[in-house]
Amino acid sequence: MQQCCRLVEEIETMTSTPHALRELGLNAGKRARLHRLLFGHGLGNGTALFLPYDQGLEHGPRDFFANPAASDPSYILKLAVEGGFNGIVTQIGFAEKLFWDFAGEVPLILKLNGKTDIPSDARALSPVHATVEDAVRLGADAVGYTLYVGTPEQVTDFEQYRTVRADAQRLGMPLIVWAYPRGEAIEAKGGRDSFYAVDYAARVASELGADVVKVNFPHPDKIADVPEVYRASFSAQAAIDAVVRSANNTLVLVSGGSRQGDEAMLEKATRSMDAGATGLIFGRNVWQRPHEESLRFVDQLRKILAQHARAR
Amino acid sequence: MQQCCRLVEEIETMTSTPHALRELGLNAGKRARLHRLLFGHGLGNGTALFLPYDQGLEHGPRDFFANPAASDPSYILKLAVEGGFNGIVTQIGFAEKLFWDFAGEVPLILKLNGKTDIPSDARALSPVHATVEDAVRLGADAVGYTLYVGTPEQVTDFEQYRTVRADAQRLGMPLIVWAYPRGEAIEAKGGRDSFYAVDYAARVASELGADVVKVNFPHPDKIADVPEVYRASFSAQAAIDAVVRSANNTLVLVSGGSRQGDEAMLEKATRSMDAGATGLIFGRNVWQRPHEESLRFVDQLRKILAQHARAR
Amino acid sequence: MQQCCRLVEEIETMTSTPHALRELGLNAGKRARLHRLLFGHGLGNGTALFLPYDQGLEHGPRDFFANPAASDPSYILKLAVEGGFNGIVTQIGFAEKLFWDFAGEVPLILKLNGKTDIPSDARALSPVHATVEDAVRLGADAVGYTLYVGTPEQVTDFEQYRTVRADAQRLGMPLIVWAYPRGEAIEAKGGRDSFYAVDYAARVASELGADVVKVNFPHPDKIADVPEVYRASFSAQAAIDAVVRSANNTLVLVSGGSRQGDEAMLEKATRSMDAGATGLIFGRNVWQRPHEESLRFVDQLRKILAQHARAR
Amino acid sequence: MQQCCRLVEEIETMTSTPHALRELGLNAGKRARLHRLLFGHGLGNGTALFLPYDQGLEHGPRDFFANPAASDPSYILKLAVEGGFNGIVTQIGFAEKLFWDFAGEVPLILKLNGKTDIPSDARALSPVHATVEDAVRLGADAVGYTLYVGTPEQVTDFEQYRTVRADAQRLGMPLIVWAYPRGEAIEAKGGRDSFYAVDYAARVASELGADVVKVNFPHPDKIADVPEVYRASFSAQAAIDAVVRSANNTLVLVSGGSRQGDEAMLEKATRSMDAGATGLIFGRNVWQRPHEESLRFVDQLRKILAQHARAR
Amino acid sequence: MQQCCRLVEEIETMTSTPHALRELGLNAGKRARLHRLLFGHGLGNGTALFLPYDQGLEHGPRDFFANPAASDPSYILKLAVEGGFNGIVTQIGFAEKLFWDFAGEVPLILKLNGKTDIPSDARALSPVHATVEDAVRLGADAVGYTLYVGTPEQVTDFEQYRTVRADAQRLGMPLIVWAYPRGEAIEAKGGRDSFYAVDYAARVASELGADVVKVNFPHPDKIADVPEVYRASFSAQAAIDAVVRSANNTLVLVSGGSRQGDEAMLEKATRSMDAGATGLIFGRNVWQRPHEESLRFVDQLRKILAQHARAR
Repeated sequence: MQQCCRLVEEIETMTSTPHALRELGLNAGKRARLHRLLFGHGLGNGTALFLPYDQGLEHGPRDFFANPAASDPSYILKLAVEGGFNGIVTQIGFAEKLFWDFAGEVPLILKLNGKTDIPSDARALSPVHATVEDAVRLGADAVGYTLYVGTPEQVTDFEQYRTVRADAQRLGMPLIVWAYPRGEAIEAKGGRDSFYAVDYAARVASELGADVVKVNFPHPDKIADVPEVYRASFSAQAAIDAVVRSANNTLVLVSGGSRQGDEAMLEKATRSMDAGATGLIFGRNVWQRPHEESLRFVDQLRKILAQHARAR
Repeated sequence: MQQCCRLVEEIETMTSTPHALRELGLNAGKRARLHRLLFGHGLGNGTALFLPYDQGLEHGPRDFFANPAASDPSYILKLAVEGGFNGIVTQIGFAEKLFWDFAGEVPLILKLNGKTDIPSDARALSPVHATVEDAVRLGADAVGYTLYVGTPEQVTDFEQYRTVRADAQRLGMPLIVWAYPRGEAIEAKGGRDSFYAVDYAARVASELGADVVKVNFPHPDKIADVPEVYRASFSAQAAIDAVVRSANNTLVLVSGGSRQGDEAMLEKATRSMDAGATGLIFGRNVWQRPHEESLRFVDQLRKILAQHARAR
Repeated sequence: MQQCCRLVEEIETMTSTPHALRELGLNAGKRARLHRLLFGHGLGNGTALFLPYDQGLEHGPRDFFANPAASDPSYILKLAVEGGFNGIVTQIGFAEKLFWDFAGEVPLILKLNGKTDIPSDARALSPVHATVEDAVRLGADAVGYTLYVGTPEQVTDFEQYRTVRADAQRLGMPLIVWAYPRGEAIEAKGGRDSFYAVDYAARVASELGADVVKVNFPHPDKIADVPEVYRASFSAQAAIDAVVRSANNTLVLVSGGSRQGDEAMLEKATRSMDAGATGLIFGRNVWQRPHEESLRFVDQLRKILAQHARAR
Repeated sequence: MQQCCRLVEEIETMTSTPHALRELGLNAGKRARLHRLLFGHGLGNGTALFLPYDQGLEHGPRDFFANPAASDPSYILKLAVEGGFNGIVTQIGFAEKLFWDFAGEVPLILKLNGKTDIPSDARALSPVHATVEDAVRLGADAVGYTLYVGTPEQVTDFEQYRTVRADAQRLGMPLIVWAYPRGEAIEAKGGRDSFYAVDYAARVASELGADVVKVNFPHPDKIADVPEVYRASFSAQAAIDAVVRSANNTLVLVSGGSRQGDEAMLEKATRSMDAGATGLIFGRNVWQRPHEESLRFVDQLRKILAQHARAR
Repeated sequence: MQQCCRLVEEIETMTSTPHALRELGLNAGKRARLHRLLFGHGLGNGTALFLPYDQGLEHGPRDFFANPAASDPSYILKLAVEGGFNGIVTQIGFAEKLFWDFAGEVPLILKLNGKTDIPSDARALSPVHATVEDAVRLGADAVGYTLYVGTPEQVTDFEQYRTVRADAQRLGMPLIVWAYPRGEAIEAKGGRDSFYAVDYAARVASELGADVVKVNFPHPDKIADVPEVYRASFSAQAAIDAVVRSANNTLVLVSGGSRQGDEAMLEKATRSMDAGATGLIFGRNVWQRPHEESLRFVDQLRKILAQHARAR
């Protein structure tokens, strides 16, 4: 298609300037807390490196077999402090029991929903087991919500999301949406990692009022069954650029996902930051290895972030 | 797998020191009540022996055929006092009707949900029939909630659990989670007793904010259909050690389950306490036999607990 | 008056058996908690020795000048543990900040109202600054409420009391009423310490549903301006006997008040226990002296309590 | 008085070690926010220098005549950032309108009550015009409440305080109490600045659960009409030492009050920090002078704070 | 006083630039409605001319004797449309009954409180008889609240104001505060019209979070009994300049008050706009005369406003 081809070219060459925090129309509480996350911790340059630690719930302890020490949340909290992370993400349990002792040293992002991976994901839905008020009480600086974009259960998903969003707005708490394409319908349309799916997920979070969206890196080569316009041959950079543009004035975090080679991860990180993402959220790629090795890898990520300072 | 084998070895040799009560980040009410349960009753050394008595609801009176006297809750309450238990667990009915007369002599743990075993467990869910406020009113020192880890009904399960958790936090009431792998999905992944299933269940309770988790003793030999990392050859001790580590700063109670030989039970008890568990919760193994025999068996359990004092 | 004189004689010779805890019609929670206070701590014989520590609010730090160490609530908490008290009474501040660390070692009685003594007491009213739910959350075993019997502000006093009583009933929390005759009207009728005033105060607490009432020791010799029947010549023993009878099935605690000679205090204590009181609540007489001296005095009080065991 | 004199000597020579933040029994949210105020801003050494800016309400614009630029809240916010303050205190108006633009750069302490000084202070009471939830929404790190210790309106004062305290506890928000002796009763007992009045005020805040108390520097020479024990000849250092001890595990901030000579203010500051106070809250003494002079004075205060680092 | 004189000079020569609407930190709803009032009606240049019509409640029908037609609210509504006002202010009655028919033609500002002038103003308080939600339902673009600055009833006044402020914030409704010094205390300190009183009133509204404040024009010559700094010889222009600066980022409307000569009114208007006020709120001076004369006077006011366009 002639039109399509011109479009691909245009998309390939579009650039965009990352939004400054003060231009995002945030209320005072959201802005104060995001300012703290982005400029008061980590490199303090407006980028972010977050450490997610909910895999024990989402996948079970099997994720810790590669580095059994990582089963202990205190180990992870210390790693977050030592590695200079901008924040750690946990479920309510560790937030209640352990954050007390690290309160103030590393920001907390309280994940409000989560599930085990034991039942099928065909009709994926992540139940809510904590509230924005819990996050306030625990001194968290943001909340996280997993939205399964495209799930057949989207009616319930959107409804429980609505409460979270309204509470977050009322209490000035930044809302980070894990925008994950999931469920039998998206699997039938190219799968969860396609450029199409990730791009759509980023947009959904933005349209529904997320302050920050966490996405997986898009795979523009997964074109089977995706809508036609996504079947053109996009570069990885063009894809992540487009995802960041789709998220628009919702800040973007790119997820590390399951453990892969360092080379690949660092390239993903560079492309994401080049695209205008605010930061990275890497868990297993960080702590599924010996401690010193974790810190060395974190150092490499920080070097990339250091080259992408964002405006206040 | 080379890596896996090194890992098994590492896991086999890991040790961990049980957490002291004061290190668990508990609020004053939870700490006061757990202190009372663990240091003010039973052996008073920080360990626990609880007597669960909800089998009449969960399995029906068939469980009392082995010792018909046990059908009478007064008999069980006296047994709890006489046997020096740290507490008794009942549903709301006996708590309302009988606990009045034993109030102060043996602590009460009010079970907030429960179900009959008549319908299928494929989509197991345990409905809530009492509240944390009921427990407060009755002078209970903890509440119990059964979470069916892995059930297809996990959305409803997590949601009703959230209310219980929030109320327990607000009212300073310790929350004991019966973390039971259950439902058709876990049956398809190795079954409810596998090391994988029990390990995951302990972790879920911990991630979701349980103060204490009750687990069944794991069977590391049940490896069919479980995730690969659990298929290595773990010893029973390594398995229960790992489960206690997965529970982390959530105290662990090991359940007796259905009646088995005393030898096996005592070994289970020893291994559990060696692994760092806080105590045991044995019902049928205690009262499905004549009174004096029950007390003799309890004595043997107490001897094991006496050797595993925990720090305040 | 002939009738009056026969009455005095009758009153002088009446005896009464203290109520057993199980006969008081208490709900399960109240009974469990009172059982714990009376049989699980202190001498464990159904009597009580409580340590009140709200003088910093009620009178200001001037009360600590006699023993500056007593200004530190940790000092007092340690004294309560060391002295084997049945419980300590504090306002919400110390309960929040310090009880956490002593939770389970010594029971807490949370005082729900209190005031400074700076403004005039003519229309005395003690504002409520904590709730029964706070007490539950903090793991307290009872709540305290000061009722200024006879104050011109009794409408407000009774109304705020009503909420406390209803909450205490709903949550199974024992309610201890500080029944203090106070205000310009009682001063015009013989003053706050007369037999008449103390007797009336004990009865008011009982009629309004207190589980325990704290009274000052009555002075039967203060007869100016009191109603006629109280002007006869009653012995101190007859007066305290009558007060305990007026309280009826509300348990009685006798207050130490400001510091006096040990001899006088011990006699007060003996007479109170002989009269059927449940125990003593002595603060300044305990801690307004060097530590070792405090413990020696407590020992003497315990000896008296040891001779007055009460039935469960 | 023999006893009194020994006492004065004892009080003169008592020392105390300031509490570490982690020893204060604070919940996670309060601790995280106080950690941020004390270790994440200002000198970051656990001390604090706060800038109060509510004089426009409390006294009217007349306070700005000495430096008209100070009438503009933006000027003050910039001063707070430039001077390295640990936080700024404002009423809801400026918090809503201006903090938005400084969110994250300097912490906000939202004052929840306040009044004009136009009506008489005989029955002083400071009405509440904002809520703890407002503070959460605005991203504030603490709330402030003025308690008029000793006012005849103490019933209403304590009641409105109770709501603030309970909300602050529930939402993990540090509560700073402006403990000001005020009203006709305290004026009749030696006045608002006496050692007696300030000492009592500090204690009241502590008993009622303040996390931080703001007091004026005590005047031990104001002895007319104060209770006898306060009439001995105490040094200024002994008086502020005693006030900090009375506050006990409530952190102390010493107020600057109306503008005085720099020499006197710096001595006050040194004595306060030597006594174990956490910091200073100086407004008019800072901004009632030209900008550069303000910063020079702040520098001198910071030098004092730098010598009194507090433990986490 | 030397310092004072320099100060007066400094104040006399200070200038300030009016705030642009977008710099006021308003939430979207407040900004949208204020934008409509200031840029969508009247001259559309960011200034405002409002027509208040609540004198029938505040003073009674006596105010209509000068022009009986003005007794009819329809007459006034038509005048507002014809005169190109930016809005009309009424109590709930006319808003319910008449605004229906003018909805959209002239914006409505719903006055939420008001009172008769029959009782004494010594303890002035204006009771609330409508809610912000009424204003939303009626399609109003702002609400008005009369705050009697300095009244002995300030506790109740501030409390009822708090609810209005919070509702206005939550619902995105601009809040206009009639900041009126009133009551026996202000009369004893120079009276309601003094520069001191008006300046203080403007500041109180700003500190308490008004979006717009309505003040009377200050009289700097009323210096008897006012605080010393206000006794210097200020010009009328310097006084209104200072009042606008005290209001700071709260927009200022200057009230016409009772009818006076046109010359004086126009000078007042010019001075106010020169000082940076947003507009005028003139009632009796407009409609206490024949219709055509009203319109001619309005024209003259509009000419002044036309010369003071404000930024968006």
